[in-house]
Amino acid sequence: MPATPLSSSFLILQPRFNIYFKPIFYSLNYQLSYSSLTFKGFRRLSIGRPSYAAQTESSNDNASGGGRSGALSPGPVTGDVQKIDVNPPKGTRDFPPEDMRLRNWLFNNFKEVSRLYGFDEVDFPVLESEALFTRKAGEEIKDQLYCFEDRGNRRVALRPELTPSLARLVIQKGKSVPLPLKWFTVGQCWRYERMTRGRRREHYQWNMDIIGVPEVMAEAELISSIVTLFKRLGITESDVGFRVSSRKVLQEVLKCYGIPENLFGKVCVIIDKIEKIPLDEIKKELKASGVMQEAVEDLLQVLSIKSLTELEERLGSTGEAVADLKQLFSLAEKFGYSEWLQFDASVVRGLAYYTGIVFEGFDREGKLRAICGGGRYDRLFSTFGADDIPACGFGFGDAVIVEVSFYIVRKERLLREKDLLPELSLQIENIVCALDHDLQGAAAMVANILREKGQSSDLVLENKPLKWVFKRAARINAQRLVLVGSSEWQRGMVSVKILSTGEQYEVKLDDL
Amino acid sequence: MPATPLSSSFLILQPRFNIYFKPIFYSLNYQLSYSSLTFKGFRRLSIGRPSYAAQTESSNDNASGGGRSGALSPGPVTGDVQKIDVNPPKGTRDFPPEDMRLRNWLFNNFKEVSRLYGFDEVDFPVLESEALFTRKAGEEIKDQLYCFEDRGNRRVALRPELTPSLARLVIQKGKSVPLPLKWFTVGQCWRYERMTRGRRREHYQWNMDIIGVPEVMAEAELISSIVTLFKRLGITESDVGFRVSSRKVLQEVLKCYGIPENLFGKVCVIIDKIEKIPLDEIKKELKASGVMQEAVEDLLQVLSIKSLTELEERLGSTGEAVADLKQLFSLAEKFGYSEWLQFDASVVRGLAYYTGIVFEGFDREGKLRAICGGGRYDRLFSTFGADDIPACGFGFGDAVIVEVSFYIVRKERLLREKDLLPELSLQIENIVCALDHDLQGAAAMVANILREKGQSSDLVLENKPLKWVFKRAARINAQRLVLVGSSEWQRGMVSVKILSTGEQYEVKLDDL
Repeated sequence: MPATPLSSSFLILQPRFNIYFKPIFYSLNYQLSYSSLTFKGFRRLSIGRPSYAAQTESSNDNASGGGRSGALSPGPVTGDVQKIDVNPPKGTRDFPPEDMRLRNWLFNNFKEVSRLYGFDEVDFPVLESEALFTRKAGEEIKDQLYCFEDRGNRRVALRPELTPSLARLVIQKGKSVPLPLKWFTVGQCWRYERMTRGRRREHYQWNMDIIGVPEVMAEAELISSIVTLFKRLGITESDVGFRVSSRKVLQEVLKCYGIPENLFGKVCVIIDKIEKIPLDEIKKELKASGVMQEAVEDLLQVLSIKSLTELEERLGSTGEAVADLKQLFSLAEKFGYSEWLQFDASVVRGLAYYTGIVFEGFDREGKLRAICGGGRYDRLFSTFGADDIPACGFGFGDAVIVEVSFYIVRKERLLREKDLLPELSLQIENIVCALDHDLQGAAAMVANILREKGQSSDLVLENKPLKWVFKRAARINAQRLVLVGSSEWQRGMVSVKILSTGEQYEVKLDDL
Repeated sequence: MPATPLSSSFLILQPRFNIYFKPIFYSLNYQLSYSSLTFKGFRRLSIGRPSYAAQTESSNDNASGGGRSGALSPGPVTGDVQKIDVNPPKGTRDFPPEDMRLRNWLFNNFKEVSRLYGFDEVDFPVLESEALFTRKAGEEIKDQLYCFEDRGNRRVALRPELTPSLARLVIQKGKSVPLPLKWFTVGQCWRYERMTRGRRREHYQWNMDIIGVPEVMAEAELISSIVTLFKRLGITESDVGFRVSSRKVLQEVLKCYGIPENLFGKVCVIIDKIEKIPLDEIKKELKASGVMQEAVEDLLQVLSIKSLTELEERLGSTGEAVADLKQLFSLAEKFGYSEWLQFDASVVRGLAYYTGIVFEGFDREGKLRAICGGGRYDRLFSTFGADDIPACGFGFGDAVIVEVSFYIVRKERLLREKDLLPELSLQIENIVCALDHDLQGAAAMVANILREKGQSSDLVLENKPLKWVFKRAARINAQRLVLVGSSEWQRGMVSVKILSTGEQYEVKLDDL
């Protein structure tokens, strides 16, 4: 199955989500954050027609608390009221409507891919016991925990990742759930990171996990599902790829030097930092953790290998590392995504619990952090005191992928005059309005008739001039304006105006 | 628009969510928690066919970490590994697949009703600045905050409700968003409550808010949307109702006694506890807060009024309290839900910021806590140092409504032999399996062809005997079994078995 070209993955996407595409994102800076990106994008919309977010018309005349509600007075603003900080806490996001639409579009893609692969949705508390996350391998994640003592003196933490909770639930269910389990989650995770460009302290993460399958087919299936997601988003193998390795590579090198197995996780965590801190620092940390000089050199040499053939020459063909990787590449051929995959021994991932195949999605321009990452974690369950179960999974954040999409949109504009990201504006089928105050109840009745037929209907709740109603209709992209006037109403009729064509007619209530 | 009978609201519900109904919940205890309820319900399913959750067959032979992955050894379980607590923190929930399906079903109904009413979805951080929630009116909510200092020494809190975040976002957007805004959210909220029967420390809450409409039409529209939800869930006005009053009732009584307006919120918070703590205690608290003896007596007498006519006699017909309420009841007639509404002066709601109409949904059996609650809060914005905007909204939790539904299901079983709650089991269109190991890649290819056609497909990832495959097919409710065998494969064919009928045939890959 060769990679689908952009145009055909569009055809798949379009009918399902009932959205359409318009040339809007010309010159977006892909390094901006999720929220500011969308905003910028939507502001540009105002060229074509009124944009919700960018609108500055002052139609909020009634906003100052005047009118009848002004007569109420549970205390006027006293002098000591300080204006609150209107921004969300540092590193967190609000989702105003335009950003929420983008989030829903992305999450719906996550969920639809998971459904296609036969995975079952699960979720866990955002707040977990701190003990679930405090492994002893020196992972960055531990120092970034949002943790505290609750009112019952329990140590709790906002989850920094989903896998430990998943493992906890699997252990809790015990033998009552037949394996394999194929579970997915889309959930929010928290890390107290230093705030640098594009980094935030919360993000949503799509996880898919397969519990109970020891074979590499499981990893192959997971990567296949991510490829399916990319294709749905219009992203091709020329935009992104997967770097793949196996922790068993390191394992085999360490074994040669008789390095104790309990150092393994720690060594992986140090090596994962190889592109973030100077090499000398890495060497120092490895030595400090108990790896002797020559093993360090050897390890670093192996990590630089970028070809499976070379790896086989170096490690021999009898070990599991090479066998697993060859198996994965062979399956990738059959699954039809081998062009997306490349071997890279330096990939180890930053979590201590991985034991076998590890992979990460990256943008081929090399400008962004990993798009997603995952691997096999066959030994996680025993660190929680339970019997081990072979398992693998991945995490896929909501931030980098949006940057990738925006980036590609920009590139596409230049190269192919094509647009990838959907225009996600509010779309309402009807706007319903009474022509005089006494008919507001009648208008409510009309709106409810339309809603019972499944049509979204915005009811004008106040007495407003028609000019105001038309403005609002344009802003919410209403398709029809339904006017309830007294002479028509007496005849059991209402006026309908198709807003795109201007066509206008009267219709019986029953025929609405 | 009269209330729709059960059967017809079913017809609406059924096609939209692609679920079907079966007699399953006979004798559920509606006082159980959400999670345990579903569990119990799904266990019963095992009578008819295999239930995911209740299944105890030991098909997880491969669960003990043996096989090839056993050769890997990043440290065996050391003696000092303590088994973690497999339960989520006290008062919180996991959502295993069967509970997640129920949650999705409910949330989809929340979202669909919001869409029908033309509301736009928004969200805010779960973690907010503590200052957003620490009002000074003595509300219970303040003492129940999950709050702590983050690593940057900021006081933060898990949100106990959504309205303050919404107000913050509205203030932040300022004049750039034209009013009225109609926004909804489905989000998780946290309160550290003492754990009593059925009480938890987190729940999800559906909020709908209308910002910028001073007129009672807004409250009428909100209540209409909740009625629409109830009907979709098969709940009628004989099962639930709304108690309605206005904070202006108290306001007018307090005004008579010249009680300062800044006491208003505090008095309301005390009065809200009227059914939870002894009357003497209420009186004592009111006096302690500065309300004189005779005002207390008068207040309590007015609170006992259950008829609008009586209220009008007591307060006169010139005040806003009576006018607003009469207006609401008149609109309820026109909206078609007046049978759901009753006046009850004792309803004040527990949040300090309400200023006008307040309402709560209740079960007519009187066994449960409020199902939902809301009202007008025209003065909230100024407590944050911004200009006030007339606004109203409601919160609708995910817990009590499930208890109501289960309760009605039980009643329905007895009275009408009818079932309300959907059977939400996993449903997969295809299960795809290779007949020998070499064909696993081929099977993956077949699964991906089906997925590209939008069909959910469970790929068997290991070499398993056919008996195992049939068991799994039954468990995941697969409709078709697609077998990839070598002789068919050589001819470009696969075998398909329709699992409900046993019908079996060969089909070309292209015609799948």
